[in-house]
Amino acid sequence: MSRFSDQLASQIRQVGNPVVVGLDPRWDLLPDELKLSDSPSLHFQAEVFEKFCRAVIDVVAPLVPAVKPQMAFFEELGPSGMTALSSVIAHAQENGLLVILDGKRGDIGSTAEAYARGILGRGQSAWGADALTINPYLGEDSLTPFVDVAIARESGLFVLVKTSNPGGGRFQDLISDGRPLYRHIAELVEENASRTAGVCGYGAVGAVVGATYPNQLDELRAAMPHTWFLVPGFGSQGGKAADVAGAFDAHGLGAIINNSRGILFAQRSPRYREKFQQANWQAAVEAATRDMIAELRAETSAGKLPGGG
Amino acid sequence: MSRFSDQLASQIRQVGNPVVVGLDPRWDLLPDELKLSDSPSLHFQAEVFEKFCRAVIDVVAPLVPAVKPQMAFFEELGPSGMTALSSVIAHAQENGLLVILDGKRGDIGSTAEAYARGILGRGQSAWGADALTINPYLGEDSLTPFVDVAIARESGLFVLVKTSNPGGGRFQDLISDGRPLYRHIAELVEENASRTAGVCGYGAVGAVVGATYPNQLDELRAAMPHTWFLVPGFGSQGGKAADVAGAFDAHGLGAIINNSRGILFAQRSPRYREKFQQANWQAAVEAATRDMIAELRAETSAGKLPGGG
Repeated sequence: MSRFSDQLASQIRQVGNPVVVGLDPRWDLLPDELKLSDSPSLHFQAEVFEKFCRAVIDVVAPLVPAVKPQMAFFEELGPSGMTALSSVIAHAQENGLLVILDGKRGDIGSTAEAYARGILGRGQSAWGADALTINPYLGEDSLTPFVDVAIARESGLFVLVKTSNPGGGRFQDLISDGRPLYRHIAELVEENASRTAGVCGYGAVGAVVGATYPNQLDELRAAMPHTWFLVPGFGSQGGKAADVAGAFDAHGLGAIINNSRGILFAQRSPRYREKFQQANWQAAVEAATRDMIAELRAETSAGKLPGGG
Repeated sequence: MSRFSDQLASQIRQVGNPVVVGLDPRWDLLPDELKLSDSPSLHFQAEVFEKFCRAVIDVVAPLVPAVKPQMAFFEELGPSGMTALSSVIAHAQENGLLVILDGKRGDIGSTAEAYARGILGRGQSAWGADALTINPYLGEDSLTPFVDVAIARESGLFVLVKTSNPGGGRFQDLISDGRPLYRHIAELVEENASRTAGVCGYGAVGAVVGATYPNQLDELRAAMPHTWFLVPGFGSQGGKAADVAGAFDAHGLGAIINNSRGILFAQRSPRYREKFQQANWQAAVEAATRDMIAELRAETSAGKLPGGG
């Protein structure tokens, strides 16, 4: 087993793109053919979420390096949802994908350690994720337990730095000591990335930086040379391929770009609705994934990656 | 059904104290008589966690207004742990306790809504919690979905403002516009508390403020007159009854004080170890709870509450 950071670089080079498919199942948007009940129980919904996500994975596994299950949508269904999540993680890994769990977890001391120990490390924890998103508000000593477990288990972390929502700036952009809060957090992340850098040059501790702020992607790329960026907000949140160009280094590495709704529910979007009927929702998922790959390769340094479609 | 804020005030007055028992089960610290295996499976550990927490609830239900299960310790055990958590929540509510789920959840838009819809509201969601702790780093629009669901379901929220860990200040104390970050967050919380205030004077949106910062408890109590405080850090993290006095209003309301390890694992502490043998761990839980109640009534305005032991 190699370090998450090097594995991620290796998988990106192998498929020739940095696309992450976000697994955000939502009942209202699922293909009608899967929703065979008018008043589904939580347990039934969870089974459908599992079936849907496994089918998405079957389509995207040969195309992309990683998936990012959003824990909230599984947790919403109670214990049955969590059982479905566990199965989805295993199916993704069996099909060669890296799994970044999006939980934005954060706590202190032994509680942070419990999250880290339970979630991080394929075959070494209850959830077995390859990486996890975490929230830095509780401070440096809240990150340490996550970083320690990530190092020990050769897994990865992505710390919220600058998020993609319109109101993200309310606290993240507050200026202190001449720079915004997110830059203070970026410094701590880069310190930890630098000291855990793998062969690929990037470390175990990455950053979440929204696609809706192109200037800040440039600024942070320069300030955080050892830090993987996980970039949400592409597609349905308005980010386009050109907007995320600044997240990459000169070789097309250093960033992974997430798309959830734009891929999962492509069949419902104006772009694909006419071409793909309901029954062809998996073909729409494939088309949306291939289109995103092509756009990133055309408009960012990801085009310099080897291989590719 | 009445609002969470008024229910909390009512239950505090009924038992005459503001103690919250934190349900943080940890395998290493459990009574030996419950751990009947040398290499327990995750499923077995989850069953023991459930048994332990239910037994703690049986002891403390007549004594205190609420319990606070820490999601991390259940999540650490995978889907089985989450099933145990669900059962623990139900048992606490069946025994008349309010349940504050400590998940420190936080996300944006429809993802925050999924957490809120799945967790908040007794009998109205998969988890059915009466209240949830949340993390404000993602900004105002990340809080709104939680607040909207809390209002609609008459449940509660506690937003991280000033945490009890030594490194909590690294970001929370950064000065911007002449005041620390945590005061910026406190303003947003108080706005939401004020507009949701119940008959008791406190609102649906509370704040987490650590017991390890007595001066800041005074300062924030004055600045947040409509905000319930959930105060962690009592006991094993070093906070004492006198340290939390500033969290209360003149009538002994406005704050709930959490103790996890100091109560759950009282039998292992120097204070109770000799008096209570291993087999009497539940008696040690009761003694530690009664002692904490007595200390708070003696050294804070909680002594002005009616009733009490």
